[in-house]
Amino acid sequence: MNLIAGTPAPPYYAVIFTSVRTTDADGYDEMAEHMVRLAAEQPGFLGIESTRGADGLGITVSYWDSLEAIEHWRRHGEHQVAQTAGRARWYERFALRVCRVERVGFFQRETD
Amino acid sequence: MNLIAGTPAPPYYAVIFTSVRTTDADGYDEMAEHMVRLAAEQPGFLGIESTRGADGLGITVSYWDSLEAIEHWRRHGEHQVAQTAGRARWYERFALRVCRVERVGFFQRETD
Repeated sequence: MNLIAGTPAPPYYAVIFTSVRTTDADGYDEMAEHMVRLAAEQPGFLGIESTRGADGLGITVSYWDSLEAIEHWRRHGEHQVAQTAGRARWYERFALRVCRVERVGFFQRETD
Repeated sequence: MNLIAGTPAPPYYAVIFTSVRTTDADGYDEMAEHMVRLAAEQPGFLGIESTRGADGLGITVSYWDSLEAIEHWRRHGEHQVAQTAGRARWYERFALRVCRVERVGFFQRETD
């Protein structure tokens, strides 16, 4: 699995979603996985990077080719259901930041 | 500890650093913690969010008030030493994206 998204040359857009979960885990993993799969099918989707540490902080960054693509995904029916459930049950708090990616560098270790 | 950074109203800047580590752990945690403390002392620093999951993917997002502040931190002597060691020993691969944060939303669950 390619954990680091292979995005095109900038400019493009990123949504940084930083979250702390509640103790209610019921249905969360299934919904999170379904949302990643669904996001990847949307117009303008470029990639996603997601991780959650032992301290409970989760960071998911999704990449999009335009603000319109982000808005389209935000309004998607199944995503709206997930957002409502997230606020009601799964998230203690979160921050969501919409950004314009302006400069990118990649590093890949050379194999010996 | 406040895991989610309490940043001001946009616009401001974010550096998204996504990485996969090598198996060389020698000195890494100490250096990473030192860099977080040092970054927080730099002019223009607004906050940092960082986590690494069991799958080995790490995402660190630092927030800054200007591109000049990001460049100043990039050129900091101790940070340059850490960057060199990171490329030489600690990182298998990484992506570094510099972004302009344009829109932000926060959610905080109400206490019962």
